[in-house]
Amino acid sequence: MNEKNQALTDYLVTFVEELVQAGVKEAVISPGSRSTPLALLMAEHPTLKVYVDIDERSAGFFALGIAKASKNPVVLLCTSGTAAANYFPAVAEANLSSIPLIVLTADRPPELRGVGAPQAMEQVRLYGEHVKSFVDMALPENSLEMLRYAKWHGSKTVDIAMTVPRGPVHLNFPLREPLVPILDPSPFTRQNINEHVHIYYSHKVIPTGTIDKIIEACAGKKGLIIAGPLAKKEFPAKLAAFAKQIGWPIVADPLSGLRTYGGIDNTVIDQYDAFLRNPLEVTDLVPEVIIRFGAMPVSKSLMKWVESFAGIPYYLVDPGEEWKDPMKAATDLIHCEEHFLVDEFTERFTQVTDSSWLTSWQTVNQLTAEIVQQSIDVAESIDEGELIHLLRKHLPNKSGLFIGNSMPIRDVDTFFAKTEKELTLLANRGANGIDGVISTALGCGTFIQPMYLVIGDLSFYHDMNGLLMAQKYGINLTILVVNNNGGGIFSFLPQADLPKYFETLFGTELNLDFAKVADLYSGGYQQVSDGEQLHEALDHAHFHKGLDIIEIKTNRYENVAVHQELFANVTEELKASKR
Amino acid sequence: MNEKNQALTDYLVTFVEELVQAGVKEAVISPGSRSTPLALLMAEHPTLKVYVDIDERSAGFFALGIAKASKNPVVLLCTSGTAAANYFPAVAEANLSSIPLIVLTADRPPELRGVGAPQAMEQVRLYGEHVKSFVDMALPENSLEMLRYAKWHGSKTVDIAMTVPRGPVHLNFPLREPLVPILDPSPFTRQNINEHVHIYYSHKVIPTGTIDKIIEACAGKKGLIIAGPLAKKEFPAKLAAFAKQIGWPIVADPLSGLRTYGGIDNTVIDQYDAFLRNPLEVTDLVPEVIIRFGAMPVSKSLMKWVESFAGIPYYLVDPGEEWKDPMKAATDLIHCEEHFLVDEFTERFTQVTDSSWLTSWQTVNQLTAEIVQQSIDVAESIDEGELIHLLRKHLPNKSGLFIGNSMPIRDVDTFFAKTEKELTLLANRGANGIDGVISTALGCGTFIQPMYLVIGDLSFYHDMNGLLMAQKYGINLTILVVNNNGGGIFSFLPQADLPKYFETLFGTELNLDFAKVADLYSGGYQQVSDGEQLHEALDHAHFHKGLDIIEIKTNRYENVAVHQELFANVTEELKASKR
Repeated sequence: MNEKNQALTDYLVTFVEELVQAGVKEAVISPGSRSTPLALLMAEHPTLKVYVDIDERSAGFFALGIAKASKNPVVLLCTSGTAAANYFPAVAEANLSSIPLIVLTADRPPELRGVGAPQAMEQVRLYGEHVKSFVDMALPENSLEMLRYAKWHGSKTVDIAMTVPRGPVHLNFPLREPLVPILDPSPFTRQNINEHVHIYYSHKVIPTGTIDKIIEACAGKKGLIIAGPLAKKEFPAKLAAFAKQIGWPIVADPLSGLRTYGGIDNTVIDQYDAFLRNPLEVTDLVPEVIIRFGAMPVSKSLMKWVESFAGIPYYLVDPGEEWKDPMKAATDLIHCEEHFLVDEFTERFTQVTDSSWLTSWQTVNQLTAEIVQQSIDVAESIDEGELIHLLRKHLPNKSGLFIGNSMPIRDVDTFFAKTEKELTLLANRGANGIDGVISTALGCGTFIQPMYLVIGDLSFYHDMNGLLMAQKYGINLTILVVNNNGGGIFSFLPQADLPKYFETLFGTELNLDFAKVADLYSGGYQQVSDGEQLHEALDHAHFHKGLDIIEIKTNRYENVAVHQELFANVTEELKASKR
Repeated sequence: MNEKNQALTDYLVTFVEELVQAGVKEAVISPGSRSTPLALLMAEHPTLKVYVDIDERSAGFFALGIAKASKNPVVLLCTSGTAAANYFPAVAEANLSSIPLIVLTADRPPELRGVGAPQAMEQVRLYGEHVKSFVDMALPENSLEMLRYAKWHGSKTVDIAMTVPRGPVHLNFPLREPLVPILDPSPFTRQNINEHVHIYYSHKVIPTGTIDKIIEACAGKKGLIIAGPLAKKEFPAKLAAFAKQIGWPIVADPLSGLRTYGGIDNTVIDQYDAFLRNPLEVTDLVPEVIIRFGAMPVSKSLMKWVESFAGIPYYLVDPGEEWKDPMKAATDLIHCEEHFLVDEFTERFTQVTDSSWLTSWQTVNQLTAEIVQQSIDVAESIDEGELIHLLRKHLPNKSGLFIGNSMPIRDVDTFFAKTEKELTLLANRGANGIDGVISTALGCGTFIQPMYLVIGDLSFYHDMNGLLMAQKYGINLTILVVNNNGGGIFSFLPQADLPKYFETLFGTELNLDFAKVADLYSGGYQQVSDGEQLHEALDHAHFHKGLDIIEIKTNRYENVAVHQELFANVTEELKASKR
């Protein structure tokens, strides 16, 4: 060990320690040579929890899952070359869903860049606009100035990732050989810890005068609250209480927390995805003013309906200044954190809207809920909607449910009614990818237990490699795989009428044997077809540690028919109810 | 079907037809909604061969493999969102290894960008500097002007991808609903085909006067030709003939083609990786001038040796103006295509170097070959080096061998001696990633048969999803998986002396059951331990269609010892030979 090893050690220890002091608790590392000193120092750190995931694409999503569930910044570390490119899908998702990932990539030093050196590629600004910031770090040195520099970037990185809107940051570390730090004695001793930079995060609030003007414009009106995906603890109960206070309905996305926060409110409307498909049958539900919280709701029928009466006052609560409003219907953007706004509203917004308004919504919601309930026949083979209905019924209190994109999230929107249970519903709704879902759910599973995942077979296949982490770290996860042997969502699109190419390009039969997959990863496996079997399988998985796969085989063609019949029934009954 | 469908159809038909006219023969498509019209039109095209790969990361490498083996531009198509980010590893590799990939990503139209629309992310310049060009295409229109625009970009895209240095290009297609083109009647009729743009590619040559000056500086000297990875048919034989003409040795990388072009030459030196580890024992091999062709050779000992006598004239033949010379030892860069240069050399460079020069090289090479040969004991359980030796022996003439990165490519360098067989050796040596290797080999397998892949277990796992394509399209591929249960290369690095963290961070035991993996993908499986079993397994796989996995279990710790013993023996014998 020489001066170079010492400089490398001092510089990187200072950086890693500062990350931890600033709030990092977990790191997900993929093996590599160039990243050796950072990997070893993270492993050596006395409090940092290190996970090793050999596939960088899965690793990226696993870290995303931890950060999503824990709300902490999570570190990713990989070596130089295409390893770093494998993080890109998770980085893009983190950027769109405001998840604080700290991506560290090892790189060749300047003299080996752009000269054809092995395993070297351009890593500067690798993720383009998909990260909040990028730093090409200086080479390790242990002058006082450079240790301050390392410390500074440790704090600043966490700060940028954690400032609203949160998101991923990327630091590229050029490293020269020797790549081995000095671990004996351990460099993480009390005296080595510099006093870290304390960060006091700001809160985004608007003046009370402005709030009063908003209240004035809304008071007594037929108002509608739309709660999109919003992962804030305690907020759902607060919002529900406020809605009750003024007599407004809340259209509650499944990821808003309003359907699953542990209380059940008659202001919460959960059947809109079905009944808003028929705007002509619900003309008395047209609001005079809308306030929307959270990200874009899943429901396409809701968003189309909102778009249809553009022009009414539409307040978008938008603390991240992100303008997430593809209908471009918002008339007012409120750059204020949600809970501050609702606290102020609760205190100052007291005028109650005529009760007939809320009643109209409740009536239609109740009618729809009954039709959906009647359509559930779990004695026969369960279909995709029934699966969601039964999951809602059987999930243990306090459990987490990760929801795959494409069909599962839409079925949850339609079939997962509000419940008195406290559940955490999660999904990757930044870019809505079907990739990386298993890894994200497993990352969530490190914080939330028991943890469940409902996912389609194509999406499952995409991130099958993610299952290794369940086996390796003994993470409990019960996966409900809806196996319709291909891409189910395409059957709802116009190309379903082009049989010549449909199966080849869109249906894409996978013919995956999930029993074999479970066996490969030493997981439990059960195939179920009716409600009773599902209940038993869930019970069984609950008491079995580690990975469990429950397969539910469905049929893509029947699935479309069942959905269409249900929505037609809703229309019929709404019509009938007005006669 | 209406005007919009017609405009969409006309615009995209023009583009797709022009791609085909310009030389595209294959497209690899991943399912998605936004990309529907391009996917359908490619499927409808009468001559374009379409592959559907559901995992975009594997798809990227599969297309890379087709382009690598066929030398044709290959199209990739995916939908919007993180799907496109999954291509990034293959795009980075294509960029560094000059493979013409034409990446088409579907995108939301302008009104749905940056407004929080679902499955929408920033796709403009998604791959940064890792593509040769990027175009954010205009929305489909069928005015004469816009059809010319579509046609123009079809040609230009192929042109950019195919111009030396070749590489990936990215076109982003904003598409609005309706997303269904008009397929009846088929839009690809003779009269719809515009006369396409004819492209006459330039050749990079240098003036004969300059060539004469180079010859003058080299003639009669102790010259050394280094042939790095260079995938040009007929070039190896031409270069070998030229070397013979002037009496220079050729240090031939396994990917140069010189060891496997179907001829066997005594100018070709193939044991240098072993004997150049001991520069003090081979002082009489120091050249007076070097000419290097192709990309960076694999051998680290070769490159360190070259670096040690920087200052002598070192000509780097560099038609792509890429300066691939991490030792920064080149004194002269020749921007000329290799075969033109060698043609001129053959005609004008006639002075023969004293035969003692070539003899010195041949003697050391022969001695080393004998020591390696003696070290091979295939009766006992075969080790990683022996596997390569046996593969060389048993591979059928005209077959292709794809070589995994990390340890396999290094072992091929050391143990794959020149042969009279005509074989195509391939590897991903742009970024040297261990990702995407199975898919790349399968892509190559669509052109080269029989096709073999030798790969480590970690790299195999990374792209296990790629195996689906073997099953789906019945591609014959025999995979020899060197299962040392983890990352074998790390045992050669200094961290091997840090037992506390070695297995966790670097060894990373995978414990994958390859018999189960083979079963999951309906492939054949055999585990072999000695040379006879390997021979039988290769025979068996040769007559079995589809996927075959042959597992060779090795031990990481023993492997290091075996390698070190061999290299020590070479040093000893070289010393002894001089006494």
